[in-house]
Amino acid sequence: MRQFVKQAVVPYERDARMTAHGPSDALRIELNALARRAGLFAPQLSAELGGLGLTHLQQALVFEAAGYSPLGPIALHCAAPDEGNMHLLAKVANAAQRDRYLRPLAAGECRSCFAMTEPHPGAGSDPAQLATTARRTANGYVVQGRKWLITGAANAGFMILMARTEADGQNLGATMFLVPLPNPAVRIVRLIDSLDSSFSEGHAELAIDALEVGAADVLGEVGQGLRYAQVRLAPARLTHCMRWLGAAMRASEIALGYARQRHAFGKPLAEHEGIGFMLADNDMDLHVARLTTWQAAWLLDQGKSARHESSRAKVIVSEALYRVADRCVQILGGLGITGDTVVQQVFRELRAFRLYDGPSEVHRWAIARRLASGEPRAGERK
Amino acid sequence: MRQFVKQAVVPYERDARMTAHGPSDALRIELNALARRAGLFAPQLSAELGGLGLTHLQQALVFEAAGYSPLGPIALHCAAPDEGNMHLLAKVANAAQRDRYLRPLAAGECRSCFAMTEPHPGAGSDPAQLATTARRTANGYVVQGRKWLITGAANAGFMILMARTEADGQNLGATMFLVPLPNPAVRIVRLIDSLDSSFSEGHAELAIDALEVGAADVLGEVGQGLRYAQVRLAPARLTHCMRWLGAAMRASEIALGYARQRHAFGKPLAEHEGIGFMLADNDMDLHVARLTTWQAAWLLDQGKSARHESSRAKVIVSEALYRVADRCVQILGGLGITGDTVVQQVFRELRAFRLYDGPSEVHRWAIARRLASGEPRAGERK
Amino acid sequence: MRQFVKQAVVPYERDARMTAHGPSDALRIELNALARRAGLFAPQLSAELGGLGLTHLQQALVFEAAGYSPLGPIALHCAAPDEGNMHLLAKVANAAQRDRYLRPLAAGECRSCFAMTEPHPGAGSDPAQLATTARRTANGYVVQGRKWLITGAANAGFMILMARTEADGQNLGATMFLVPLPNPAVRIVRLIDSLDSSFSEGHAELAIDALEVGAADVLGEVGQGLRYAQVRLAPARLTHCMRWLGAAMRASEIALGYARQRHAFGKPLAEHEGIGFMLADNDMDLHVARLTTWQAAWLLDQGKSARHESSRAKVIVSEALYRVADRCVQILGGLGITGDTVVQQVFRELRAFRLYDGPSEVHRWAIARRLASGEPRAGERK
Amino acid sequence: MRQFVKQAVVPYERDARMTAHGPSDALRIELNALARRAGLFAPQLSAELGGLGLTHLQQALVFEAAGYSPLGPIALHCAAPDEGNMHLLAKVANAAQRDRYLRPLAAGECRSCFAMTEPHPGAGSDPAQLATTARRTANGYVVQGRKWLITGAANAGFMILMARTEADGQNLGATMFLVPLPNPAVRIVRLIDSLDSSFSEGHAELAIDALEVGAADVLGEVGQGLRYAQVRLAPARLTHCMRWLGAAMRASEIALGYARQRHAFGKPLAEHEGIGFMLADNDMDLHVARLTTWQAAWLLDQGKSARHESSRAKVIVSEALYRVADRCVQILGGLGITGDTVVQQVFRELRAFRLYDGPSEVHRWAIARRLASGEPRAGERK
Repeated sequence: MRQFVKQAVVPYERDARMTAHGPSDALRIELNALARRAGLFAPQLSAELGGLGLTHLQQALVFEAAGYSPLGPIALHCAAPDEGNMHLLAKVANAAQRDRYLRPLAAGECRSCFAMTEPHPGAGSDPAQLATTARRTANGYVVQGRKWLITGAANAGFMILMARTEADGQNLGATMFLVPLPNPAVRIVRLIDSLDSSFSEGHAELAIDALEVGAADVLGEVGQGLRYAQVRLAPARLTHCMRWLGAAMRASEIALGYARQRHAFGKPLAEHEGIGFMLADNDMDLHVARLTTWQAAWLLDQGKSARHESSRAKVIVSEALYRVADRCVQILGGLGITGDTVVQQVFRELRAFRLYDGPSEVHRWAIARRLASGEPRAGERK
Repeated sequence: MRQFVKQAVVPYERDARMTAHGPSDALRIELNALARRAGLFAPQLSAELGGLGLTHLQQALVFEAAGYSPLGPIALHCAAPDEGNMHLLAKVANAAQRDRYLRPLAAGECRSCFAMTEPHPGAGSDPAQLATTARRTANGYVVQGRKWLITGAANAGFMILMARTEADGQNLGATMFLVPLPNPAVRIVRLIDSLDSSFSEGHAELAIDALEVGAADVLGEVGQGLRYAQVRLAPARLTHCMRWLGAAMRASEIALGYARQRHAFGKPLAEHEGIGFMLADNDMDLHVARLTTWQAAWLLDQGKSARHESSRAKVIVSEALYRVADRCVQILGGLGITGDTVVQQVFRELRAFRLYDGPSEVHRWAIARRLASGEPRAGERK
Repeated sequence: MRQFVKQAVVPYERDARMTAHGPSDALRIELNALARRAGLFAPQLSAELGGLGLTHLQQALVFEAAGYSPLGPIALHCAAPDEGNMHLLAKVANAAQRDRYLRPLAAGECRSCFAMTEPHPGAGSDPAQLATTARRTANGYVVQGRKWLITGAANAGFMILMARTEADGQNLGATMFLVPLPNPAVRIVRLIDSLDSSFSEGHAELAIDALEVGAADVLGEVGQGLRYAQVRLAPARLTHCMRWLGAAMRASEIALGYARQRHAFGKPLAEHEGIGFMLADNDMDLHVARLTTWQAAWLLDQGKSARHESSRAKVIVSEALYRVADRCVQILGGLGITGDTVVQQVFRELRAFRLYDGPSEVHRWAIARRLASGEPRAGERK
Repeated sequence: MRQFVKQAVVPYERDARMTAHGPSDALRIELNALARRAGLFAPQLSAELGGLGLTHLQQALVFEAAGYSPLGPIALHCAAPDEGNMHLLAKVANAAQRDRYLRPLAAGECRSCFAMTEPHPGAGSDPAQLATTARRTANGYVVQGRKWLITGAANAGFMILMARTEADGQNLGATMFLVPLPNPAVRIVRLIDSLDSSFSEGHAELAIDALEVGAADVLGEVGQGLRYAQVRLAPARLTHCMRWLGAAMRASEIALGYARQRHAFGKPLAEHEGIGFMLADNDMDLHVARLTTWQAAWLLDQGKSARHESSRAKVIVSEALYRVADRCVQILGGLGITGDTVVQQVFRELRAFRLYDGPSEVHRWAIARRLASGEPRAGERK
């Protein structure tokens, strides 16, 4: 996996199909073919779906190797949001939905998106603010609303759509729907300029107007959307940690190489204590990020919910890796702010990671509430 | 000034002439005209050069107001690198050079650039590594070398070029030359992709091949280039602090406004302690940045070199303002990583500021050496 | 002042009368005599009370000089809590109270204490939790309650006592009372072991049982206690900043001297970048602390309440000076944790300062609420 | 183990034999008896020496439990410096030395000390500065020098003494000697006042004058002292991490309990986000410290040197646990700086831990040098 990413994927990083809104689908399809040929496609999937049936801990190793290039997870079909969507569908979709949505997605025949967040004042960190509605009709539901920062929506084959369900004036809670795309009732208002640029087709804003969804396209049960979101998010947060650990490793290798080679004030940068201490801090932050990710992955492999550990990992890892990326920029000096190395992109991605899947503040508060309620002892797993 | 920037300049922030490599010259010229009409053009210049003859402390107030928009300093002709170049020329240029270079620059008839930094293994933080050479000839000098990350070089009217001077096999030290642009011996190899995007025409890489410079275009004396660089840099660092203080104020206003209006978990973000503490930290960092900048400006007004204070200000202010921008991104959540507010750009600019004009590490070491030599008592100005 | 503290006061730092609970009264009296002889006693007081009538900004300079030794403020009679008590009495006491309490205190004939905080669940950061009661009787009040962490209570000549006032079953709010000490109804339960050790006679826990106070000993008006506490605290926080700035200067001088003299790995510590960066950070933190303190002091001199700036200064200065002390310990290595230099004591005092007069969290929240209410713009004074 | 420490040891924390220089030997002997009776004495020792023959990873669990009370490791005879000394002797001592020194120490019949560090300008972080000399004589060695900050020297049964060995004017390098105490040639000059107070009999300064040591009391080989110091230090650093993790767990439990019970501004502290975030950060720092310690212990169990991991663990764990202790003090408010809870002591101990066994700076530099030499990839173990 490491070799494949270094040798086959990294050269594509300067491909013209890398846009400010992320790699284009054409690039993805070309990379997917390479991965299939190498026998490395979608390794996280079950054997039945064409993968290697990896445990979470095995995924940690493989996804880190994939994350070494921003294009690695896309090439290997283990990138967000598809990877999390496949996980969710594998857990919740019924047989017909598996055939219609999961199989082609698993095969890389299409991409998917996950449409939960909304523009102000709708749902962001607080899912209770969900403003998109799915009103019950005779044959199914009619959805109305606006979604925002929906990763990979452009050119996606379908979306998992979260909406507040209403029937006979009653609020039935959030429900997930499967919606084939493109769809005349779902308009891509714009691609949103964003600090990051590693997701296929970037982030879109969607206007949903009188979208009709049949009852067969309810994912799981009505009103269980928030619960399923947790099913998706706890491991999804962790796979983010794994992939971005690889990205931060890459940045730190580049910075270390530069510090060993570049001279200033009479000796290599790496022999200046000020720079050396930054290299050491990178080493320690990467170590901590890896151990934290592995422990949570191992816990999932034990069949535990790892809710607490997933929150911990999200905060610890995103903040540690961000510090690494920030130091790498600083070590590279002027070079660090240019696009001449991938470090600048890694820095931008990791800044965004501190906000994805719940900003640090939301997770700190979730951890704090559990501690205050007496659930785990501080510093211990349940 | 504040009103002018808010009302006349801010609307241009979404102008199509704002590119990934910074605002185009056409946009600059249009904005300059507005500033002239408002009587606010180049306020830092002496009255003789058409400015208001502001003290450094007065500049601190005016430049902060200008920095409220990334386009403000450009509109008002007090942006880097022109502002520092004018300062340098006013101090060092002879009468003929003032007429030929300073006057048209002061009038906004052209832009200029400052060509010091070089690609590896040339001059970066350590100017002793200067690799571009100016070899003495019968009539002047022939310059050979490569310059890198040269802000505003594209479409500039002239450049101040730093090169190691050699005559008869002897190293005469670094010298500054004035070079009209465009020039067939100076090729713009490329515009460099960069994290920031607020400088006119971005950052270029230049190949200088057999460039002939007449003796009359030596700026000041041969071999005094590094000394003049200090003449330029000490105040230039401080005007960076002033302008970016304005930018950080803008970001913090946007974040505060958002925190007061956006609800999550049952109340406005600003009423969550976690967010409130970030707002308070912004308030304190901005306060500290302002006081530090003002103190150093005041010292320059007393005729002091303020070398130590300029280093202090560079580190304190760039790091404090960066923390502010980072918190603003965090407070805005998903919105913070989009281009929907100017906060994302301010964040990118301030990350770069931690590297411009000497990274924090170089200044920390300069401060440390002075302390170790017994020069100032820790925490006191000499 | 600087000379007096260095030459006359510093030698007493190893006096046997320095106990774990702070310097004894006998030591204070001896030091006060030296200060009087030098004409430097109680410089902050008005000329009428025997002082020099300094402005707040002048106090900043003088108190910093005093704080150079933990014994300096005690010698000069500008230490907490007496200094703040004198300030409060000068503002609020009536003529008779001035004669009976303020004059002897100003003359150094006695010490005083300020009895507000209580053991759990009474008043701490939140004064609304005041549990000590003063019940109205025919001739005055009967006070009942427990006070905790009352600095300098042992051997004090009187205390300013805060209690919730009740009359006819009605809560009249918090009131301040003047209570001569010793008093049979006020029992010193114990001296409390504490991290700090620079306050005269340490911190006591008091049991108050059926204490009778006459109406003439109400300080100011009934029910105005919390307002007077603010009269006392806003400048008292600032004088803490001033004195501890001096202490941190002292620590940083010791650390710098050590770093210049002590060798490790072939060169003086100060020539190691890792140590040099710490010295530079100390220099910058001290600079920021001084500017912040001066700005707030200057604002008080303009007749402003400086409520916002006092909160800012408390947080900025206590945290900056603590970082300085922590780095000094680190630079000194093993020596830093011993009592062989005063650095260890300064470290302990500054840790405590982050909690005195409102912990950082209370001030951050106060700042945040003002920002959220639209009162000052972030980073600006009103 | 947890139960024993909580029920049998914690009550002794307020014993009068706890002095500012640490617990007295009388207290230790009483506690040792309890541990023996509970079958928990010296669990880390081999079965042959009366212990349980724990692996390093098992030690991590047991030492954490012991560290829950500052007296726990002393009671269980797994405290520094004896624990590290026993480890060293078990590795290096010959049969006669095992009988004479290791057996009685393992049985708790005496204590020992490790005499390496010296007053300025002798050996501190840089062992090359060793100034104490052992001059070769006909029958052995004569040692001359001064040792400083020697933990547990007072009342110790013997010391392991490091000295620079000289024979016939030649420097043979550092050698370790076994020296029975008390000894008329070894004078305890004083007990040194120190920030910490958990080591038996505190830290002493020793004057060694014409101390005669026989050749039989050379530990291991002449000139191998620095190598043996590494044999001792790599695991000793780790057992420090284990014990202090327990101490930080204790502090965090106390802080959490207080935050759940203590009200301010209308609700329990723990329901304030500002406090909640501190509790969450404690939880995460404790988690990271535990994982880091376990990983390094596991590596030692694999027979690896774990030199790199031991340095990492020292920095990561000491700094993480210190942050925990600092936050606990802050959460407790005024109570935190008093001796009313053990938190204040834990804070003091952990501040010292950042300096023991090599300050963070020495380890950061060691890590940096290995990275710069290409030894491990950043963030990876070799």
